[in-house]
Amino acid sequence: MALLFTSTPARLPVWQSLFAAEGLPLIPGEEAVTDPAQVTAIACWVPPADLSRYPNLRAVISVGAGVDHLPPLPDGVALSRTLAPGIEAMVRDWVVMATLMLHRDMPRYLDQGRAGTWQSHPVALAGSRRVGILGMGRIGTLTAGSLQALGFDVAGLSRSGTDGAVPMFAASDMKRFLARSDVLICLLPLTPETRGILNAETLSALPRGACVVHAGRGAHLDTDALRAALDAGQISSVMLDVTNPEPLPSDHWMWLDPRVIVTPHVAAQTDATEGARHALSVMRALRDGTPVPGLVDRARGY
Amino acid sequence: MALLFTSTPARLPVWQSLFAAEGLPLIPGEEAVTDPAQVTAIACWVPPADLSRYPNLRAVISVGAGVDHLPPLPDGVALSRTLAPGIEAMVRDWVVMATLMLHRDMPRYLDQGRAGTWQSHPVALAGSRRVGILGMGRIGTLTAGSLQALGFDVAGLSRSGTDGAVPMFAASDMKRFLARSDVLICLLPLTPETRGILNAETLSALPRGACVVHAGRGAHLDTDALRAALDAGQISSVMLDVTNPEPLPSDHWMWLDPRVIVTPHVAAQTDATEGARHALSVMRALRDGTPVPGLVDRARGY
Ligand SMILES: NC(=O)c1ccc[n+]([C@@H]2O[C@H](COP(=O)([O-])OP(=O)(O)OC[C@H]3O[C@@H](n4cnc5c(N)ncnc54)[C@H](OP(=O)(O)O)[C@@H]3O)[C@@H](O)[C@H]2O)c1
Ligand SMILES: NC(=O)c1ccc[n+]([C@@H]2O[C@H](COP(=O)([O-])OP(=O)(O)OC[C@H]3O[C@@H](n4cnc5c(N)ncnc54)[C@H](OP(=O)(O)O)[C@@H]3O)[C@@H](O)[C@H]2O)c1
Repeated sequence: MALLFTSTPARLPVWQSLFAAEGLPLIPGEEAVTDPAQVTAIACWVPPADLSRYPNLRAVISVGAGVDHLPPLPDGVALSRTLAPGIEAMVRDWVVMATLMLHRDMPRYLDQGRAGTWQSHPVALAGSRRVGILGMGRIGTLTAGSLQALGFDVAGLSRSGTDGAVPMFAASDMKRFLARSDVLICLLPLTPETRGILNAETLSALPRGACVVHAGRGAHLDTDALRAALDAGQISSVMLDVTNPEPLPSDHWMWLDPRVIVTPHVAAQTDATEGARHALSVMRALRDGTPVPGLVDRARGY
Repeated sequence: MALLFTSTPARLPVWQSLFAAEGLPLIPGEEAVTDPAQVTAIACWVPPADLSRYPNLRAVISVGAGVDHLPPLPDGVALSRTLAPGIEAMVRDWVVMATLMLHRDMPRYLDQGRAGTWQSHPVALAGSRRVGILGMGRIGTLTAGSLQALGFDVAGLSRSGTDGAVPMFAASDMKRFLARSDVLICLLPLTPETRGILNAETLSALPRGACVVHAGRGAHLDTDALRAALDAGQISSVMLDVTNPEPLPSDHWMWLDPRVIVTPHVAAQTDATEGARHALSVMRALRDGTPVPGLVDRARGY
């Protein structure tokens, strides 16, 4: 029973020491595999192309929170995505920052700054801003609490529309949810159902002049529709941590558009210790026959 | 018994309706004064030059949170500064935004964006960042709670160094406080003691590469010392809502320096209703002989 580690090499020493402390074997890369039958799980961003090499493989562990980039896995191989409080807190921090930046007119002040213009505009209280969070999972729920604590008027949308500490909408009630979102935050997983969800139709269902904060996945967004909505004044400003295409080409219009602020997919990075701890918890579950933490439902896609 | 209103004319209708509802006379400007003996209090940003005209004047009400711009007042005239939850929350929101922006490398990402560069840098957890709040009054205390809730390692400094929900330092212990502040936040009032407090000596007492968030008053800051500290790598980035000089001239070096982000003194604006409510509470106190809300100690300067 061993874990095959094929993630970022810089994180390896931390993983090695945590696995050693637990007495669980860790194989530091495919080239180090001597007996493929020993490999019980693989921790990776993308798994090796040929998984049939590992007859006893029972789980693939994604070192990130998203799993949309992963290929289908052989029958009997579970997919676990890393559950890490650090990832959730980092994304939450980025989204709170982005929401405050749009709420407080930073795109406009940054643009004025480039021209050396000292000019104030009306300041609104957070309580006057209706925030809608698309995707109320681990990260959405954490984010909702933080934004609510700052006084924003927060609602959330999930598939089921249940179980929120804030007013909740179901996916079937999207229109009503969008109509009350002065700031729309996307924290959805990328699935066949959510691909392209930020499109001309949804953007036009927001209140006129709404803002968008996007930290889901690039492919949620129809970039041309966004541009048209910005040009029409339907959307006033946007903060994107994920883009479509991604990475954003250096000559893309969004880089220089004052209404758009882009960060290069840095809302979260998996901390080596947290990643290794999650992998250890998966190994223990496989050993003890208990439920695999972070188990992904491949049929629904998250 | 009447209030003389000399603040922003756009706010007047709200004040008039609130005063009318309370049955208290409001005089909408000096030119409307028929009997100066009726004027009990003046609500203003800067009071009229000649206060000797008002023999029964008992209070001047500053419509903002700061009072450093006000001249000495005649004996027996109290100075009240507007206490308004809205002002405090607005400044808190701006400071939380600015702290997150520096914590999450926004100056660098904005600079990269101008060059169309998609390049990530290590992301730190909020808990790894020691934040120091200079001035733990109404706004500092509120801000400390919000930053602590996001996981930052927050400490505060006040004159006395007592009474904080976070670890507190006294003014006499400034050096130790600065040495633990990866992000220094200034929320001090401007007084003779605090003028120029962000200078070469204090900036050099911060950990190397520290960030500064400033929402106090422009005159707290020695701008030349800041430039030298930035150039020496002692300070890595800064967000300023108040500047020295203020307004910042359009050709000032700070506008185009990628390490500096300036907003034009917009951390807070007094909401008309909140301002009027505060003035009403002062009028009631003067009528009933109870303590004046927001009373400023002119000797200590805040
Ligand atoms: N930018 C970054 O660096 C970064 C970092 C980490 C994560 N992320 C993104 O954030 C996403 C969310 O992460 P998480 O950990 O919070 O996920 P999660 O716990 O799995 O939650 C997913 C949420 O989305 C909802 N949802 C799924 N499909 C939906 C649909 N078709 N319509 C409406 N709602 C739907 C789910 O509804 P139910 O509650 O009803 O199931 C759930 O509330 C990740 O998948 C990833 O794309 C980005
Ligand atoms: N940028 C904006 O738009 C904006 C808007 C509103 C306010 N402000 C600024 O924010 C300031 C603070 O407002 P506030 O309502 O929080 O004030 P406050 O309640 O009067 O609190 C002032 C704090 O500063 C401390 N302090 C005063 N002199 C000090 C010294 N020499 N050394 C160390 N600490 C000292 C006080 O210590 P003690 O607790 O020991 O007395 C107190 O903690 C205002 O004066 C104004 O300059 C800016």
